[in-house]
Amino acid sequence: MADLWQNAMDHAVTIARHAGEVVREALQDDGKKTVMTKSSSVDLVTQTDQKVEQLIIQSVKEKFPTHRFPFVAVSIGFSVSKQMEFGVVYSCLEDKMYTARRGRGAFCNGEPLQVSDQEDIRQSIIATEFGSSRDPEAINKIFSSLRSILCIPVHGVRGAGTAAINMCLVASGCVEAYYEIGIHVWDVAAGLLIVSEAGGVLMDVEGGPVDMMSRRIVAANSRTIAERIVKEIDAFSPPRDDAAPPNQ
Amino acid sequence: MADLWQNAMDHAVTIARHAGEVVREALQDDGKKTVMTKSSSVDLVTQTDQKVEQLIIQSVKEKFPTHRFPFVAVSIGFSVSKQMEFGVVYSCLEDKMYTARRGRGAFCNGEPLQVSDQEDIRQSIIATEFGSSRDPEAINKIFSSLRSILCIPVHGVRGAGTAAINMCLVASGCVEAYYEIGIHVWDVAAGLLIVSEAGGVLMDVEGGPVDMMSRRIVAANSRTIAERIVKEIDAFSPPRDDAAPPNQ
Repeated sequence: MADLWQNAMDHAVTIARHAGEVVREALQDDGKKTVMTKSSSVDLVTQTDQKVEQLIIQSVKEKFPTHRFPFVAVSIGFSVSKQMEFGVVYSCLEDKMYTARRGRGAFCNGEPLQVSDQEDIRQSIIATEFGSSRDPEAINKIFSSLRSILCIPVHGVRGAGTAAINMCLVASGCVEAYYEIGIHVWDVAAGLLIVSEAGGVLMDVEGGPVDMMSRRIVAANSRTIAERIVKEIDAFSPPRDDAAPPNQ
Repeated sequence: MADLWQNAMDHAVTIARHAGEVVREALQDDGKKTVMTKSSSVDLVTQTDQKVEQLIIQSVKEKFPTHRFPFVAVSIGFSVSKQMEFGVVYSCLEDKMYTARRGRGAFCNGEPLQVSDQEDIRQSIIATEFGSSRDPEAINKIFSSLRSILCIPVHGVRGAGTAAINMCLVASGCVEAYYEIGIHVWDVAAGLLIVSEAGGVLMDVEGGPVDMMSRRIVAANSRTIAERIVKEIDAFSPPRDDAAPPNQ
């Protein structure tokens, strides 16, 4: 059983690296890349590969027509019976491969990760994002939370631009905590395991246990820091990722 | 004359790289680094070097006891009769050396830089920072400006954590614009030249010409984007960098 997951994880790492290379080339070569055609055009895997490559390139070009902001990630989380077994986050432009398996630690390019040991919130760097919602009520709460956290005061606020990398920054000890409301399960699934395997703490924005489908998350180096942040968050609840689709 | 500045700039690049290496080691080795003592201890330059190294290490350790957020920069701007002649920004942890000489273009690790050609604000990524002031009135204006810009809407808001790197991100086309109130001349002097030599535009936050001592800046890929941002900024004026010190 253990070997099965290890094989699956090795495969996920390969996929993440390949997808990351495609993204990186799409972003860097700015359209000049020609997708290599493989020799056997009837090979189903090859055809799928090419379709995936084309989909990724098209989606990157549509979403980021001219952007080269340094944090773009491929994130793969794998759970069995709602328990995360492994997580893989590939930060494409930095060429950093973050991996974690349940109970076996978290790594970046093979080096073990450990969260920061900073317990003083005033010396802490907190990562967050504004998210994609422009709903005024959500924006009000996002700004009011951020303002309260900034004025604790904390040492600084940062945002890498992607939830997956923000969580890897927590796991690496680069920032003390990351919180956000509005992310999706596919943004954070891999990161959740990477943070907890690096010794970090996960929590809901109101302090209860983290719920992967709730679109709310606090990931921190310690319970002290997580709870201090929770105190300042003006929480709200976006539609859950596992909610039934609304009647049209 | 031209050669004189070139020599000065080459020297600045060497200094920036060396300082950057010291910073990087101080951050990465987390205290394990022993400063190498050079053979001739009576050499004045060597002694100065060592003092500078120790000062940098001490200052990095005090300011960032445990932090490894990926953007830390050494910034050197050189002006003659209030005109910038060259600018050097070394992004230590990324190992990226940004350079610009007046009238001769901007480069990153020797590759020419060009700002983004995105003219649609809704497709733009804007960089800014919350700064170090926790004065409630300043924070009000900073948040109200950011909220207005976010809700134009723009594609996204980012912050690398340092003004110098944010400006290099503009010069590199990674973000369309950067604005901030509260920065100091030493944060932006080098970046100003790097942005303008990469084809970018500099402006005051109220739309007039940029004033290096005013602690206010908009740096953008184009006049269109810069002016659109200026419209949303709730401006204020921190004490100028060239103001007489207040009476005690």
